[in-house]
Amino acid sequence: MNLAIFFTLSLLASISHAIVEDYCVGDLTLPKTLAGYACKDPSKVTVDDFIFTGFRVAGTTTNIYKNHLNLAFANAFPGLNGLGISMARIDLGVGGVVPIHTHRTSEVFLCVKGRIIAGIIDTNNTAYYKTLEVGDVMIFPQALLHFQVNAGDTPALAFVSLNSPNPGLQVIDDSLFAGNLPSELVEKIMLLDPEQVKKLKKALGGSN
Amino acid sequence: MNLAIFFTLSLLASISHAIVEDYCVGDLTLPKTLAGYACKDPSKVTVDDFIFTGFRVAGTTTNIYKNHLNLAFANAFPGLNGLGISMARIDLGVGGVVPIHTHRTSEVFLCVKGRIIAGIIDTNNTAYYKTLEVGDVMIFPQALLHFQVNAGDTPALAFVSLNSPNPGLQVIDDSLFAGNLPSELVEKIMLLDPEQVKKLKKALGGSN
Amino acid sequence: MNLAIFFTLSLLASISHAIVEDYCVGDLTLPKTLAGYACKDPSKVTVDDFIFTGFRVAGTTTNIYKNHLNLAFANAFPGLNGLGISMARIDLGVGGVVPIHTHRTSEVFLCVKGRIIAGIIDTNNTAYYKTLEVGDVMIFPQALLHFQVNAGDTPALAFVSLNSPNPGLQVIDDSLFAGNLPSELVEKIMLLDPEQVKKLKKALGGSN
Amino acid sequence: MNLAIFFTLSLLASISHAIVEDYCVGDLTLPKTLAGYACKDPSKVTVDDFIFTGFRVAGTTTNIYKNHLNLAFANAFPGLNGLGISMARIDLGVGGVVPIHTHRTSEVFLCVKGRIIAGIIDTNNTAYYKTLEVGDVMIFPQALLHFQVNAGDTPALAFVSLNSPNPGLQVIDDSLFAGNLPSELVEKIMLLDPEQVKKLKKALGGSN
Amino acid sequence: MNLAIFFTLSLLASISHAIVEDYCVGDLTLPKTLAGYACKDPSKVTVDDFIFTGFRVAGTTTNIYKNHLNLAFANAFPGLNGLGISMARIDLGVGGVVPIHTHRTSEVFLCVKGRIIAGIIDTNNTAYYKTLEVGDVMIFPQALLHFQVNAGDTPALAFVSLNSPNPGLQVIDDSLFAGNLPSELVEKIMLLDPEQVKKLKKALGGSN
Amino acid sequence: MNLAIFFTLSLLASISHAIVEDYCVGDLTLPKTLAGYACKDPSKVTVDDFIFTGFRVAGTTTNIYKNHLNLAFANAFPGLNGLGISMARIDLGVGGVVPIHTHRTSEVFLCVKGRIIAGIIDTNNTAYYKTLEVGDVMIFPQALLHFQVNAGDTPALAFVSLNSPNPGLQVIDDSLFAGNLPSELVEKIMLLDPEQVKKLKKALGGSN
Repeated sequence: MNLAIFFTLSLLASISHAIVEDYCVGDLTLPKTLAGYACKDPSKVTVDDFIFTGFRVAGTTTNIYKNHLNLAFANAFPGLNGLGISMARIDLGVGGVVPIHTHRTSEVFLCVKGRIIAGIIDTNNTAYYKTLEVGDVMIFPQALLHFQVNAGDTPALAFVSLNSPNPGLQVIDDSLFAGNLPSELVEKIMLLDPEQVKKLKKALGGSN
Repeated sequence: MNLAIFFTLSLLASISHAIVEDYCVGDLTLPKTLAGYACKDPSKVTVDDFIFTGFRVAGTTTNIYKNHLNLAFANAFPGLNGLGISMARIDLGVGGVVPIHTHRTSEVFLCVKGRIIAGIIDTNNTAYYKTLEVGDVMIFPQALLHFQVNAGDTPALAFVSLNSPNPGLQVIDDSLFAGNLPSELVEKIMLLDPEQVKKLKKALGGSN
Repeated sequence: MNLAIFFTLSLLASISHAIVEDYCVGDLTLPKTLAGYACKDPSKVTVDDFIFTGFRVAGTTTNIYKNHLNLAFANAFPGLNGLGISMARIDLGVGGVVPIHTHRTSEVFLCVKGRIIAGIIDTNNTAYYKTLEVGDVMIFPQALLHFQVNAGDTPALAFVSLNSPNPGLQVIDDSLFAGNLPSELVEKIMLLDPEQVKKLKKALGGSN
Repeated sequence: MNLAIFFTLSLLASISHAIVEDYCVGDLTLPKTLAGYACKDPSKVTVDDFIFTGFRVAGTTTNIYKNHLNLAFANAFPGLNGLGISMARIDLGVGGVVPIHTHRTSEVFLCVKGRIIAGIIDTNNTAYYKTLEVGDVMIFPQALLHFQVNAGDTPALAFVSLNSPNPGLQVIDDSLFAGNLPSELVEKIMLLDPEQVKKLKKALGGSN
Repeated sequence: MNLAIFFTLSLLASISHAIVEDYCVGDLTLPKTLAGYACKDPSKVTVDDFIFTGFRVAGTTTNIYKNHLNLAFANAFPGLNGLGISMARIDLGVGGVVPIHTHRTSEVFLCVKGRIIAGIIDTNNTAYYKTLEVGDVMIFPQALLHFQVNAGDTPALAFVSLNSPNPGLQVIDDSLFAGNLPSELVEKIMLLDPEQVKKLKKALGGSN
Repeated sequence: MNLAIFFTLSLLASISHAIVEDYCVGDLTLPKTLAGYACKDPSKVTVDDFIFTGFRVAGTTTNIYKNHLNLAFANAFPGLNGLGISMARIDLGVGGVVPIHTHRTSEVFLCVKGRIIAGIIDTNNTAYYKTLEVGDVMIFPQALLHFQVNAGDTPALAFVSLNSPNPGLQVIDDSLFAGNLPSELVEKIMLLDPEQVKKLKKALGGSN
């Protein structure tokens, strides 16, 4: 190990259970850490680091869920890095859904256009759901399963905020049917019929 | 309610270093604690506890700042209680401002209508500010001073989210000129001229 | 002060973003809070409050999952209240599974008898799974989907620990098929066929 | 259970992983919780709740350690309740010590009068110690064993601050020799000779 | 140091939700992260890393505020790094003030010499202020505006402790009048008269 | 960018006051930080990173305490890094003890073989102790002194879990008698007789 590397090795780290700098704009060219990105050199920070302009236009809703999720998480909006909050723009086509999912942190959901059925399920298996009108907000508590369904005849639009810069969105269908989990295990741990698993693996692109 | 019960009601403490229940809808009839409200009886929770409908209509912008802040904090939206997040609707009339202020937690600000100059000042006294267009988001890091000014010829609208159910909004002008801090102290701790203090105390309603 | 009030005074719970008492044994006769139970009167705490003896015997594994989960969470072991940790004993019959599930906090899983396939799925839909032998430990990171399957011809036994006194166990199948979420919504938010939903609703006892 | 009590029972609770009120002055007449005291009625808070005047005079240093610890923790200074910080005044007579001890949180120690040997021991059993002069500060990291010894011929004085309103001071000698732990167990878990244990139990007042 | 190393040095991130090492003395030659400094090589840590001797002498109080703030934050006292606490020595000349300011964390203030008027303003614009005598302590809750004024005819001295190694001190006057925020914006977001802004910009050195 | 630098780039650690990645397997070839290890390159993570197989065999109990502590902390089981939990296997020979000790976090202790006396001492110097049978669990609250003693005529076995990946185990005897703390200081800060200190320093290997 040469000296330069040794020197470099000695600088890693840090810590704290609370924010100890004003901000820490993430540097996307550097490796991600459990807490997000390393800080960009403060002398190169500009006002544009604190602003995200990616929500100006609607997304296309042509996937199987007829939705488009535009996630302003820390990788897309590095100014959020370390600050405990993020946003997303959600476009739902007619018949569109955000399939049942979960994440590490709580979320507020603001309906901006259309009518949207939104719901949560708690750990007693009780579902709470209702149709939201324009201007309505729903809270989805930390880590609970929840979903949204376009309830109208026109496209719907929502903006959400979550209290983490990288909330860890986990869509149940994608976890089961779009990845590498073997069909045999999916059947056992979900009690699903083999044909149903096969059908959804095909639809969502998972391996067998 | 007799005295003994009233006495009892005043002692509910609380708080936690991690969420250990699914949710804790606040009961507004009970005393607030450092961590927010006591939990509503879970058997009486309905879907409406998780939904806030108060943002449907615009606020009037006739105060001295020509703004209207509709705060969906835990006292107005008790379903947020304990979940670490909240929202607000901000209407700015022509010439309207959100005067310089601070709060305990970070904020994301989404411009929904009009054009808004938004800015932060860091602890090195460097200001970062820019005009936001519709759809743009700005992040205001925890506890730093920040402000917004309507930059257009029409009313502007924004929605914000903060990572606390009760972020503790502190407006500098209101702290100095709308409360009970004596003019003599205001002058000393701000280096302001007596006439300036007198003028603003009168405009904002503070005592002398 | 009458007895009723005295009784009431003793139940004030609480908890903090940092532990500020040595311990806070939960009082199960009092209402739960978001942070767990109110503290038992310290003068009545005995060594038995710090000890749980409920794991001495195996559970019967006759449910549909052929498992038995004995949860030493704060409601069963009130001494854990506020201390950020809990345990469970997991008995798996031949062919038994712990179906895919999630919880708010991380978990360590110790295989004590038999052979158990255990796995996690991350938010990129990648599954990591393997057969554990006696003495092996697997870590399931916070909030990620995971599962266990008895891989042998004999009953299996495991002990787990989670870093919350009430981790909020949410079993996907139970959330979808054992509660009140209407079949029509389950179909939409999971892309499942109506017959599959009907079959599992019947098996797990959910309403239609 | 009458109605008043039922009503009372329904209000317990609360929670949060962060401060969500400006302050929460503790009410000492009410039961303590894991997070400290319940909040005093805000309408009755005065400036005196934020001020502690108990440090004005020196303590007498006539105990076996020749020290006097004046602890401004939340029970003595209720305004600290929930705010994550506290103080103490430490008087050391000639030959006085603060015997080796630990607490849940970190501490800064300011030498105001005299000369004091202060030290910590880390988890690798390495001791770091030195003589502090007037005006010097030493940091004792969270939960590590540490101690102070008057190094001069005159009384010494220090002020300390800890980042918890109730840090949980645990003095090793007092834990072993001043309480109810049987001598036989003390000998086994410390490898101490029976005569040594007997001598210190007698000096510090512990049972046998 | 070549470019590659420099590039490497700029990426050190960090932070944590709990201390997982005994200590992490900051290395000032390395880039700061959101959580403070990277750890110094533990094998090179000595007792002097845990001690700060910079408070032995008084500061000169010749600035416009007639104060001198000697901040023992992590950059000046790297042993504090990651430990959630810091200190400062405050000298106030006759007529001296610490102008109204705020920071991310709570503070305890100990009056050691002289008489000092200290006060806080809460988010309801209520000010709490009083004159402190030698030995008195005042608590300033997290993020609230507060100030101190020398109330006597002699210099005053105080020591403070804050529960962060880098609390983020933000002085309102400096933020408004000593930095780059344009006068026109200052006037709008503070409702101040142009002459007043001009006068203070000149006195404090801000740009126009 | 050369290989050495690339290698360096991959080690940047971090961690957060909230988990913001799914996991962060520690890279043991890199320097530790206050929050643990830097993350291993995610593309090289395999299922084996989440599994620890070191508990399969018993440890030898031939040291002075007749115990063997097999610690599955983050340095031995890097998959725990950043996840707030760890485990240990404890073998106690006949007459074996885990001498009185403390750590930064809470612990659950599961007796798997034999009979074990376990106890805690709180900050009021009250000891709580009892003999555990096979299957019993005891909770040791954060930072309190505690101990275990084999109460039977056969070897005993326990598994424990702690809510930190690196809890900071500090054994009082080792701190006092196995390290570099001078005997004179040990005597003063423990009130121990010089012969007792000499005897234990010799037994445990400390310097004089």
